[in-house]
Amino acid sequence: MVRLDAGEVLVAATDTLNEGVHFSPGAAPDGLGHKLLAVNLSDLAAMGAVPRWALMNLTLPEADEGWIDAFAAGFAALAGRYGVRLIGGDTCAGPRAFSLTLLGTHAPGSALRRSTARRGDRVFVSGTLGDAALALHRRLAGDEALPPGLAAALDRPEPRVDLGAALCGIATACIDLSDGLLADLGHLARASGLGATLELDRFPHSQHLAAEPPGLRWDLALCGGEDYELCFCVPPERVDDVAELGERLGLGLTAIGVMTDNPGVRCLDPDGTEYLPAKRPWEHFGSGVGGNG
Amino acid sequence: MVRLDAGEVLVAATDTLNEGVHFSPGAAPDGLGHKLLAVNLSDLAAMGAVPRWALMNLTLPEADEGWIDAFAAGFAALAGRYGVRLIGGDTCAGPRAFSLTLLGTHAPGSALRRSTARRGDRVFVSGTLGDAALALHRRLAGDEALPPGLAAALDRPEPRVDLGAALCGIATACIDLSDGLLADLGHLARASGLGATLELDRFPHSQHLAAEPPGLRWDLALCGGEDYELCFCVPPERVDDVAELGERLGLGLTAIGVMTDNPGVRCLDPDGTEYLPAKRPWEHFGSGVGGNG
Repeated sequence: MVRLDAGEVLVAATDTLNEGVHFSPGAAPDGLGHKLLAVNLSDLAAMGAVPRWALMNLTLPEADEGWIDAFAAGFAALAGRYGVRLIGGDTCAGPRAFSLTLLGTHAPGSALRRSTARRGDRVFVSGTLGDAALALHRRLAGDEALPPGLAAALDRPEPRVDLGAALCGIATACIDLSDGLLADLGHLARASGLGATLELDRFPHSQHLAAEPPGLRWDLALCGGEDYELCFCVPPERVDDVAELGERLGLGLTAIGVMTDNPGVRCLDPDGTEYLPAKRPWEHFGSGVGGNG
Repeated sequence: MVRLDAGEVLVAATDTLNEGVHFSPGAAPDGLGHKLLAVNLSDLAAMGAVPRWALMNLTLPEADEGWIDAFAAGFAALAGRYGVRLIGGDTCAGPRAFSLTLLGTHAPGSALRRSTARRGDRVFVSGTLGDAALALHRRLAGDEALPPGLAAALDRPEPRVDLGAALCGIATACIDLSDGLLADLGHLARASGLGATLELDRFPHSQHLAAEPPGLRWDLALCGGEDYELCFCVPPERVDDVAELGERLGLGLTAIGVMTDNPGVRCLDPDGTEYLPAKRPWEHFGSGVGGNG
C-alpha cells in the first residue's frame, strides 16, 4: 500500500522469465534475481521514470532454500541500488518461472515516449550492441567459459535508469532494446509515423564483438536482442547535450543514424549500400545452435 | 501510464495460475480468464479498494487463437463489470501459466486491514463456504458432470468487490478466503494479536454441501480453500448495519463466531465441544484423490 504525491504519474512494466525459454536450467540464481529486475528497470528507464515498487510472482518446482536465498540476494542488491521496494508477491509450485511487475512514477509531462520522435532527429544508442546475443549463441554452441564481461552482458544486464531520467527534456523519444535494435527502433519509428536510416560502421561494439566479422557484428547488433540499452532520438541542436551527459554518466552514447520520412529502418554499410541483415544472426554460427524463443 | 488523484492511495495484488497446479489442462479458457482476474479482485476487495488497472503475464505453449480469444473474452467480461483497464503485459512461450497484477486505489484512511480486529468483534463470512473445495475434489475423483452452481463456485468465483467497498467504516478488519477459513482467519487473528472462536452449526452452506455429512461440510469449509468470499470482523454495535448491507447487496452475510484474547482459531461443534478438523478434508473422499497443491 503506497501513497503517491499529488499529480505524480504512475507507470508500470511487467516481464516474465521462463526456464528453458529465457534461461537455462543451470543458470545461477543470483543472476536470475538480478536480471528479472533489470529487464523491468530497463522498461521504466525508457520512459524516464523513477522505479519505486515491485510485485513478484515466483513459480518453483521445489522449495530449495539456498537457491531462493541466492535469487533474493541478486534481486535485493539491484533493488537497493535504485530504491525499489518489494510490496507484494505470490509463490507457487510448478515449472520454474518468474514474473515481475515494476511500478514507477514521474512528474506530469516529463515521460519519454516512443511516439514523439521527429524527422531529422539523430538516433543514439547507449553502451555497446550485440554482446548479450553473442554470449547467448556462444553458450548455446557449448562454450561455457565466456570472458566475464561478455557473460555479464547476458546474465547481469545493467539497466540505464539514470540515463533514462536524464534524457527527459533532451530526447524526443526513447525505447529500450530487448528484442534487437531493428525490431525496437522499428516500433519507435512506426509509433512516430517515421522511418530511420542507420550507418552500420557507427555501431558501438565491445572488444568481444569487434573480433567478429562485420556481417556477424551487424546482425547480432540489429537482431540479437537482450541488449537492454536505450535507443533514443535527439534533435540536432541538442546533440552536444548528449555528449555532456555521456561524460557525466561515464557511459558511451553513440549517434548511429537519423529519423526520416521513409517508413522502415534502413541500414547502410560503409559503402553506402543498403544492407539486409540475416533474420537469424546465429545462423552465422552454423547449425546446432538454437534461437532464443 | 495512469494518473492518480491527489492523496489517493495505491494498492496492489498479484497472483499466478499454473496449469497442473491451479487448473487442469482441459480447463475452459474463458473460465481461466475470469478466474485470473477474480482471484486478484478478491484480494483488492478484502482491502476495500476500487480496482483500476491490470498487467498480465501470459505464458502459452502455442499461439492458439481460438483459445486466446476465449481467455480474453472471459477476462474482459469481468474487467468490464468493474471498470478494470489492462495497461500492460507480456506474452511468452512455455508451460501454460498466467500472472496478473491488479492495481487499485482508495481514499486515504479508508482501507480495510487484517491487523485491526478487536476483542469481542463478531466474525462474519459472505456467501457460502466449501463449495469450490467440494467441486474440486469431486472433479479430481472423476466426476465431470457437476451441478452448474457447484462447478461455477470453482471455475468462475464471484469476487466480493462491492461488499469490500461497503465494509469500509463498518468492519474493523477483513481478509479474503483463498486458502480456507481456518488459515485465512488465522492470519487475520494473528495480525490483530487475537484469536477466534467459531460455531460450526452457524456456517453458511449451499444445498450442495448441505447434502454432505457434517464432518465433511465443516472440513471443506474450514480447510478446502478457493472460496473467494470475504471474512470480516464487526463490533457488536454495528451488526445491524451488516444485516442491512446484506439485504442491499442481495448477498448472505453470516455471523459465525467472535474474536477472543486466546490465540488460534477454535471451532465448536453443536454440542459446544472443540472440533479438530481434518487437515486434508478430501481424505473423506477416500484415497486416489489428490490435494490442490
